[in-house]
Amino acid sequence: MKQISFEQLDITGGFWKQKQDLIKNVTMKAVYDRFKETGRFDGFKCDWQEGMPNKPHIFWDSDVAKWIEAAAYILEKGHNDFLRNICEETIDLFIKNQDENGYFNQYFNIIDCDKRFKVRDWHELYCLGHFIEAAIAYAKATNEDRFLKAVCRYVDYVKKVFIEEKSAAFLTPGHEEIELALVKLYDYTGDKKYLDMSRYFVETRGTPENPLHGWEQKYNQSHLPAREQFTAEGHSVRAVYFYSAMADLAIRLGDEGLRNACEKLFENITERRMYITGAIGSMPRGEQFSIDYDLPNLTAYAETCANLGLALFSRRMTLIEPDSRYADTVERVIYNGFLSGISLDGKAFFYENPLEIAPKLRLREGERYPITQRLEVFGCSCCPPNIVRFISSIGDFIYAAKGNIVYVNQYMESKAAFALENGSCEIEQQTGYPFDGKVTIKYKGDPATLAVRIPGWCTGYVAANPVVKGYEMYEVKDGDVIELEFDMPFVAFEANPHIRDNAGRYAIMRGPIVFCMEGVDNGDCIKDIRLDLATACLTEDKSVLDGVPCVKVTGYKRDLSRFERKLYVPKGSSIIPFEATMIPYYAFANRGETDMLIWTMLK
Amino acid sequence: MKQISFEQLDITGGFWKQKQDLIKNVTMKAVYDRFKETGRFDGFKCDWQEGMPNKPHIFWDSDVAKWIEAAAYILEKGHNDFLRNICEETIDLFIKNQDENGYFNQYFNIIDCDKRFKVRDWHELYCLGHFIEAAIAYAKATNEDRFLKAVCRYVDYVKKVFIEEKSAAFLTPGHEEIELALVKLYDYTGDKKYLDMSRYFVETRGTPENPLHGWEQKYNQSHLPAREQFTAEGHSVRAVYFYSAMADLAIRLGDEGLRNACEKLFENITERRMYITGAIGSMPRGEQFSIDYDLPNLTAYAETCANLGLALFSRRMTLIEPDSRYADTVERVIYNGFLSGISLDGKAFFYENPLEIAPKLRLREGERYPITQRLEVFGCSCCPPNIVRFISSIGDFIYAAKGNIVYVNQYMESKAAFALENGSCEIEQQTGYPFDGKVTIKYKGDPATLAVRIPGWCTGYVAANPVVKGYEMYEVKDGDVIELEFDMPFVAFEANPHIRDNAGRYAIMRGPIVFCMEGVDNGDCIKDIRLDLATACLTEDKSVLDGVPCVKVTGYKRDLSRFERKLYVPKGSSIIPFEATMIPYYAFANRGETDMLIWTMLK
Repeated sequence: MKQISFEQLDITGGFWKQKQDLIKNVTMKAVYDRFKETGRFDGFKCDWQEGMPNKPHIFWDSDVAKWIEAAAYILEKGHNDFLRNICEETIDLFIKNQDENGYFNQYFNIIDCDKRFKVRDWHELYCLGHFIEAAIAYAKATNEDRFLKAVCRYVDYVKKVFIEEKSAAFLTPGHEEIELALVKLYDYTGDKKYLDMSRYFVETRGTPENPLHGWEQKYNQSHLPAREQFTAEGHSVRAVYFYSAMADLAIRLGDEGLRNACEKLFENITERRMYITGAIGSMPRGEQFSIDYDLPNLTAYAETCANLGLALFSRRMTLIEPDSRYADTVERVIYNGFLSGISLDGKAFFYENPLEIAPKLRLREGERYPITQRLEVFGCSCCPPNIVRFISSIGDFIYAAKGNIVYVNQYMESKAAFALENGSCEIEQQTGYPFDGKVTIKYKGDPATLAVRIPGWCTGYVAANPVVKGYEMYEVKDGDVIELEFDMPFVAFEANPHIRDNAGRYAIMRGPIVFCMEGVDNGDCIKDIRLDLATACLTEDKSVLDGVPCVKVTGYKRDLSRFERKLYVPKGSSIIPFEATMIPYYAFANRGETDMLIWTMLK
Repeated sequence: MKQISFEQLDITGGFWKQKQDLIKNVTMKAVYDRFKETGRFDGFKCDWQEGMPNKPHIFWDSDVAKWIEAAAYILEKGHNDFLRNICEETIDLFIKNQDENGYFNQYFNIIDCDKRFKVRDWHELYCLGHFIEAAIAYAKATNEDRFLKAVCRYVDYVKKVFIEEKSAAFLTPGHEEIELALVKLYDYTGDKKYLDMSRYFVETRGTPENPLHGWEQKYNQSHLPAREQFTAEGHSVRAVYFYSAMADLAIRLGDEGLRNACEKLFENITERRMYITGAIGSMPRGEQFSIDYDLPNLTAYAETCANLGLALFSRRMTLIEPDSRYADTVERVIYNGFLSGISLDGKAFFYENPLEIAPKLRLREGERYPITQRLEVFGCSCCPPNIVRFISSIGDFIYAAKGNIVYVNQYMESKAAFALENGSCEIEQQTGYPFDGKVTIKYKGDPATLAVRIPGWCTGYVAANPVVKGYEMYEVKDGDVIELEFDMPFVAFEANPHIRDNAGRYAIMRGPIVFCMEGVDNGDCIKDIRLDLATACLTEDKSVLDGVPCVKVTGYKRDLSRFERKLYVPKGSSIIPFEATMIPYYAFANRGETDMLIWTMLK
């Protein structure tokens, strides 16, 4: 099973075209400007001195690398002098300031030079991983490989230090990333030494040779050998990057142990430790996974990078086995807990993605809540450049192919052309997804099987063809047109009773979109609202929220006059109807600080 | 309006007789033993030296003083050599080690001697306040006044230092208590200088002469002059002790400004900042009141001493104006958020009284929850001796009299005899309260009016006589018997919609008792239970919980099989009935660590 990469297709219109255009036309410059003014780009000059502003940081390279990777994905699809010039300048500086031995890090090049590879958690190999991904993307997009060659020199140096000489102060990096990047490098170059390096880092982690103690063990996924990790533990971004690499290796090495662990980890996440938005890592302390079913809404950490990482892991799982639950999870993430990470204007970002906001609680002392408004840049600003690289390459998620079977995993208006085992094909999708469940798939090319994912939320779907693990199998030939219609009623979802916060409450979805209510539309006490979901309708009028489809629905609140000067009164039945408004969760917090709630009550 | 004190009556049977016997026979010794072994009593020897265990603490005197006060209340009702001997020994040491100038504090007598009256928050005057209360009680009970005389020497010294010389490093104490104690001393001695001292401390607090900054201002109720404080702020125990003194002064001085502030503060607490259990001070940070309606259940701080203090404040408010909401609040506190502070066996105590417990959440890192099991002693062990003095003198809450009107505020099996304005009376109460709403009041004596409180929870009550501010006015003469019957159905209470945690949930009460469910009776996922309250019945079989009446009721849980391997499923209707058990909230956590919940859902 092979992924059809975004290079083999174009997003031609609709929801994601609008997002990609926003990234290209607005976000890339906004992120660049913030990174420029905070010194992240200038750090590549390696001329910082004590007393100057913007002292480089150990992980700033990764921020810029992800931005370059995104730039490359955009360059792949067309000229862009602005992006190209910034990339070239930065690559010039990388090459100029790279050590003779290949080493580069804007922090360690000039600060704490003697601490290179001395502290496991200082992100050097994490940064290198992102350089690898950026350099591959840039080489593909521009057909120029000087950046990639320079990065490969660094990789070779890492191989020498970590694997041949074992002279570093630690065996495996504190923050995973290089493991999956090395697999990409193997895929691109065909050089097996990179696959071996990845395998070394994955297999050495959590072994007796690589001991850690207490808290840090789970935090860094170093508590057990990879093949024995069955529950998602520790820092959630690190975890899903690691699991992604494990899946990559399982596929390429046919490693049943890694595959088994990946399957169990995916199940643990999606059956015990994931918000309905696809967000993961509920615990603020250490940005970690918590215990099973511990998914509080108000204090959800749910980092954008972690949610995005779950999509990366899930996409790889689809390649291990075409079971629709993997692509279902991708869909859950990309339309909800990932997309909430960026503002509608494309200029501001959430690091944390809570499922409920109550600004007044901030007046309470001594407790920590996620911020309520997106920011343009963070001190630890990993999320913004991760978002731009992810959206720019989101075409990666649409298709996978095995022999002459093409798996249609995501529905996005697009045109693709790629080879099959026997022949080739062109596939065009026309759809108003995610707000319209009609999808027209036009097929040209050699006879093939189109395995069309029946979305997990579409419980009423009646298949006309055999269904295998959630995919409807269409036999197609040149000129065939498949008209899919996934009915999109409003559906109230219950949460597993073990999730404390959601008992007696429902999350409203329509298709893949999770809806929420905001105080700005619905007034005070939004937690007290009961909705009559039978009255819900998507608004034609798109003026509520800058063109984003919203929902009008009859809501009911308790009559506050019953509580005049009273905290507690005997149960009554007086409720007051009003026109409630729901908006897609991903679009919350775009109209100033206000209450927000996903899990509501029904009348 | 005058309070009829517990000395003028006897609790003769029923609920509170059992509690008073438990205190006398078990708890007093248990608290003494813990205080003895932790050095609190030996601290009175003032011979601690560096290297010895049990270094005295600045507030240990108050722990012992409250214990002596409780002992005096018990001695008031009968001989008890064990208690008397300990009191005498301790008083001997107090007198022996008291400074020539009257000063005594087991910490500052021998440690940090030069820091006396230098640090506002170091509890010296707080300890003195408790000595005053203890000494008055002991003098009343034993007719021996050497302790009181010694304490009064200390009081005179405080007057000299704080009021005459103003030589202390602060003007008013960090932790209020002496203010209300000085009023007691005035009441007992008739010496107006003590009333003036109390007034000085109350009126100086929060004035420009007594500036504090930022957080500490509200924490100590020093942010505004007393007459301008209308919202309950800061450390909740300090707050209600302060408000109690304000009410005391308002009554004795006819001070309208203080009365007005007290009324507003009472309203702010009971209409915005009080749990249904009568608990207050929801915020762990600084043991403080939070903002309006911020009453989370799981993280409720709700210190036993604060809840008890609300009863003290409310009792005083009844004397300002006989409005039944004050005695209603006393009732709410004493049967719920106060009484939960002590275990059924009388040996262990809660400092915090949460309204919900979820032991599994403790596995989550980085968050703070109240402890789940009562302890025998705490480092800061203010609550246990406060409980024993409170229960031993609970008769204080039953009656108040004004002219020939006797206000019957609480229903407890008891016999009282006291003077009226014109004549005298004996009143006997027979009742199975709080589990039985029948109360028989036998009146003997001169003609009078009995103002019988109609409990706030008893919404269906039909009065046969005029009702004034919640009291039914019975004209009585010698030999009259009043048969009251307060119907006690199970009632589901709603919380004000502004209280986030309780939206869609109900607290079940029967009479004054708030009920809760525990995991030990009701299994997993108790937050998911829906009760059919129509099926509720008080159990005849008292074996569930050591003789405490419990409730059997049909409960429903969602069918977990619908969630096999799933976190989120479309709304279904499959629920599974089971026999649920509710117990009085005050009796929770007596059978090992388990989940607990007050606010439940209804079918």
